[in-house]
Amino acid sequence: MKSFKKIFSTKSKSSHSPESSFKIGGMGSLKVLDVTPSPEEDSEKLKKAFQGLGTDEEGIIEILGHRDASQRKKIRETYQKLYNESLIDAIHSELSGDFRKAVILWTYDPSERDARLANEALNSKKRGIKNLEIIVEMSCASSPQHLAAVRQAYCSLFDCSLEEDIVASVSSMPLKKILLGLVASFRYDKELVDMDVANLEADRLHEAIKTKELVHDDVVFILSTRNFYQLRATFDCYQKKHGNSIDKDIMKLGKGDLESLLKMVILCIDTPEKHFAEVIGTSIIGLGTDEDSLTRGIVTRAEIDMMKIRGEYMNIYKSSLDDAVIGDTSGDYRRFLVTLLGGKI
Amino acid sequence: MKSFKKIFSTKSKSSHSPESSFKIGGMGSLKVLDVTPSPEEDSEKLKKAFQGLGTDEEGIIEILGHRDASQRKKIRETYQKLYNESLIDAIHSELSGDFRKAVILWTYDPSERDARLANEALNSKKRGIKNLEIIVEMSCASSPQHLAAVRQAYCSLFDCSLEEDIVASVSSMPLKKILLGLVASFRYDKELVDMDVANLEADRLHEAIKTKELVHDDVVFILSTRNFYQLRATFDCYQKKHGNSIDKDIMKLGKGDLESLLKMVILCIDTPEKHFAEVIGTSIIGLGTDEDSLTRGIVTRAEIDMMKIRGEYMNIYKSSLDDAVIGDTSGDYRRFLVTLLGGKI
Repeated sequence: MKSFKKIFSTKSKSSHSPESSFKIGGMGSLKVLDVTPSPEEDSEKLKKAFQGLGTDEEGIIEILGHRDASQRKKIRETYQKLYNESLIDAIHSELSGDFRKAVILWTYDPSERDARLANEALNSKKRGIKNLEIIVEMSCASSPQHLAAVRQAYCSLFDCSLEEDIVASVSSMPLKKILLGLVASFRYDKELVDMDVANLEADRLHEAIKTKELVHDDVVFILSTRNFYQLRATFDCYQKKHGNSIDKDIMKLGKGDLESLLKMVILCIDTPEKHFAEVIGTSIIGLGTDEDSLTRGIVTRAEIDMMKIRGEYMNIYKSSLDDAVIGDTSGDYRRFLVTLLGGKI
Repeated sequence: MKSFKKIFSTKSKSSHSPESSFKIGGMGSLKVLDVTPSPEEDSEKLKKAFQGLGTDEEGIIEILGHRDASQRKKIRETYQKLYNESLIDAIHSELSGDFRKAVILWTYDPSERDARLANEALNSKKRGIKNLEIIVEMSCASSPQHLAAVRQAYCSLFDCSLEEDIVASVSSMPLKKILLGLVASFRYDKELVDMDVANLEADRLHEAIKTKELVHDDVVFILSTRNFYQLRATFDCYQKKHGNSIDKDIMKLGKGDLESLLKMVILCIDTPEKHFAEVIGTSIIGLGTDEDSLTRGIVTRAEIDMMKIRGEYMNIYKSSLDDAVIGDTSGDYRRFLVTLLGGKI
């Protein structure tokens, strides 16, 4: 790793938008009311929706589906105080199926939500790369602050660190090494690009791919330490200097788990909206629907970059994301997802 | 890394105290008043102490030397609001020498303080292990929350991540690998020990030492991922099964930088109070005083475990830490350090 230069503050602009892609509210689809009822009012309405003979699912969607993360946090706290009962438990006992899963994930604090999703993925009997998506997403398509909060939530919830569970659950050494590097990152989060470093590290990555050393310390260091803007410049550089995009060159080495994981990492860093458009597209297209992935894609990005994902979806699939969701889901589950997408049914 | 077991919640007690050693206030020497003046009053008194012909150093010590981290934070914020001037800048322009350095370090938020100390260490012309102490201390003798806050502060202050600066500044590959692993950690922070894991990993460490593979991925994983209680049990196990303490076995391989760094890591994890007693002792004993180390030792631990450090100092040096500090310093610097030690001069 001797060749790594220090990035000085030569604030050269990359072609990417200067505002952080992950700022909540910036490019999200969630519609929050201009004047929101107090957490007490919301809690009372939720309590009423849970009570009585039938549950008022529409009422629940109307409230929670139009509140942002900080508002939902206040509702959770207030509900607990008012009724001495956890809002999550109440939802769990009143709703069911995919609708319940989606509302619960949406109601958790985002850090607890991702910690639980990661834990579920690591303990799942389903193996393979698809299952590890959430870990890549929270490391490569989220803010460093969010990742740190997820790691803290993981420790609180599961009595060990996320890294310990990765080592215990992922049997492939190369995958383990990459995932450990990624989840341990705390990247610089502003736009700061050094083109010399981009050049140098594009070459280093190219060399590693040429010699098939995909988990060389240098590769892990570059992917898990450099800031997202710097990495995008490095990937641009790679394509300009070496002809192909870096993920294409990696996939030429094989279509195994390691190559697929690295492709996912690069996509999440380079164009998270494309990754999530594909998560949602893949969950819908073909026989049957993968509700867990569909829910994860929409619930985790509705407050972040769903507007961009919608555009990318159109680019990739030449059809509307919203229509696809409506066509492939039904009932309250559909109504809830459409609400998070900013629509009405 | 295949052999690592998952640690299940078999809450076996280790011999260590169950309360976190790093809880602020628990074993600190700092004396905070029962009834503290408001941040406004404190700010006004500080402003007065700075004004006029001479600076009122005693007044400054009397206030800041008796406020904990959260109180100092409020004073910083209030001072800024009242006088449109940073408290740190004011201290910088009114005080001088080692006294100034100590008061400024004490006044910073602990995360900013350690980020600045780490940055200074990485940019220092002084080379060698001694210089890297602060990085080991914040990774191995602090809470995971504090380490995450330091990494965030580092990004905000220096326009790159701590890891990027470690890679750019530390030229030795093995040292770099260990430091990167340590600073990236987010350990589980409660007392949870699995004796099977301790046994297994004590053997793995022993094997790595025997084969001189001190920076094997397994070693870095164990030292930078396991919780402090688990690691202490592993070190105990090592000594029981293999005769010597692990740091002794490491030092048998040589007295180079790598061995010394690992020894420091183990000491900081196993008995941080012993590490800091030695930091303070070494800074005082012999010709001249190393004021920077002395200040760091006292300022960073006065709110954490100075009572334990004092005891360890007596064990090691058969003399009083407080007497040593008084004997080796003078003037306002002495008065300030003694105040943080809970004494009066």
